[in-house]
Amino acid sequence: MEKKRVRLVVAYDGTNYHGWQIQNNGITIESELNRCLSDLLGEEIQVIGASRTDSGVHALGNIAVFDTTSRMPAEKVSYALNQRLPEDIRIQKSEEVDIDWHPRYCESRKTYEYRIYRGQFPMPVKRLYSLFSYHNMDVVKMQKAAAYLVGEHDFKSFCQVGAQVESTVRTLYHAEVEEQGDDLVIRVCGNGFLYNMVRIIAGTLMEVGQGKREPEDMQLILAAKDRKAAGPTAPAHGLMLMKYEFM
Amino acid sequence: MEKKRVRLVVAYDGTNYHGWQIQNNGITIESELNRCLSDLLGEEIQVIGASRTDSGVHALGNIAVFDTTSRMPAEKVSYALNQRLPEDIRIQKSEEVDIDWHPRYCESRKTYEYRIYRGQFPMPVKRLYSLFSYHNMDVVKMQKAAAYLVGEHDFKSFCQVGAQVESTVRTLYHAEVEEQGDDLVIRVCGNGFLYNMVRIIAGTLMEVGQGKREPEDMQLILAAKDRKAAGPTAPAHGLMLMKYEFM
Repeated sequence: MEKKRVRLVVAYDGTNYHGWQIQNNGITIESELNRCLSDLLGEEIQVIGASRTDSGVHALGNIAVFDTTSRMPAEKVSYALNQRLPEDIRIQKSEEVDIDWHPRYCESRKTYEYRIYRGQFPMPVKRLYSLFSYHNMDVVKMQKAAAYLVGEHDFKSFCQVGAQVESTVRTLYHAEVEEQGDDLVIRVCGNGFLYNMVRIIAGTLMEVGQGKREPEDMQLILAAKDRKAAGPTAPAHGLMLMKYEFM
Repeated sequence: MEKKRVRLVVAYDGTNYHGWQIQNNGITIESELNRCLSDLLGEEIQVIGASRTDSGVHALGNIAVFDTTSRMPAEKVSYALNQRLPEDIRIQKSEEVDIDWHPRYCESRKTYEYRIYRGQFPMPVKRLYSLFSYHNMDVVKMQKAAAYLVGEHDFKSFCQVGAQVESTVRTLYHAEVEEQGDDLVIRVCGNGFLYNMVRIIAGTLMEVGQGKREPEDMQLILAAKDRKAAGPTAPAHGLMLMKYEFM
């Protein structure tokens, strides 16, 4: 039987999952996809994910591929799979791709948003998808700081220590800080992100916003190539993988 | 000991509650407030709520009052109470009001929003706070239909049968339908709302959006003074009590 490769656009609420990647303890997005796809197609399916998001991180459009000998048209997989998945995971699109197409070995642009809700007290309906902060933050300073990150840089200072990676050089196409009512949204778009990179960027920009660092310090942090030079890793639940674009 | 009356602005995620009002089965917003306030102040406290929202309905700013002989300054109650409440209920403000001020017997303007997420498939991070719909909706027609509701009318057709109420006449100051990206937001502001009134308005406007009714039909629905003349009651989880303003 002929094998084909199917690409999925996967949206999820990360609140109740131990992240993307299969683990011995706890349910993950990957394990749910494998379980439901294997049920649906009657063969053992193992997906490959583009971004192995951490526990608590959300996605509007992560990417996964899998191979199957099933005759089900790739476009129909989204409908059939959504009938089986829990309601906090929903396939947004399914389509056939070349059999050698791999989501981690192809040129792509990824966009993440980190959301901060600013108020005197936490707002319950925002608690799962944004970080609450009662600190005043200087948005203009945060915007200036973010601008230093745009371009090709060695982001070693913004990579969690111990991450296995050949190179820590990445290119950011955009890095913006936008006010949306009471929310502050940090939006970054790049060709790739190191482990915890967006959350460390967010933690560092919040320190700039609170006046603990100056925007110009971002240059020194990049130059240090040392995780200790940057700010703290912001909590996972404020982070959302918005979209993947393939070149 | 002298008694004082304290007013609370209460925000909550209604997902995990059996609505506002105390029930024999299930935890409610009111029962949680009474429990935590009684613990905090060391006397039995019973709050009076402005709007007894249904199971699954959310609020950014519902109103409650209670009487206490405690010496705790009213302004401090918000901070202390938030330490005890579950994270899906948060007091946004606490202040002393006149001892005879009652949230249901005073002039006020209430604003509600009903949110619809339009997409091909449900979006997990929106599932708790909006109604998913894959139907195309004609927003201009919905806006025209909503405009017929503005003013003083007998809203009996938009009131759940069996509701105990002296008069079904209410005044709407605004009734708008707004596109926010993929979301459609129905926003109504009035001096009072009948039982399920906003959800029946939302269900009826969605039928207009889908071409099942014409905008002009709203006049006939109002004139009928019959619940059966209006559309279905839209699900609770799309509804959010936004704010109370007191005159």
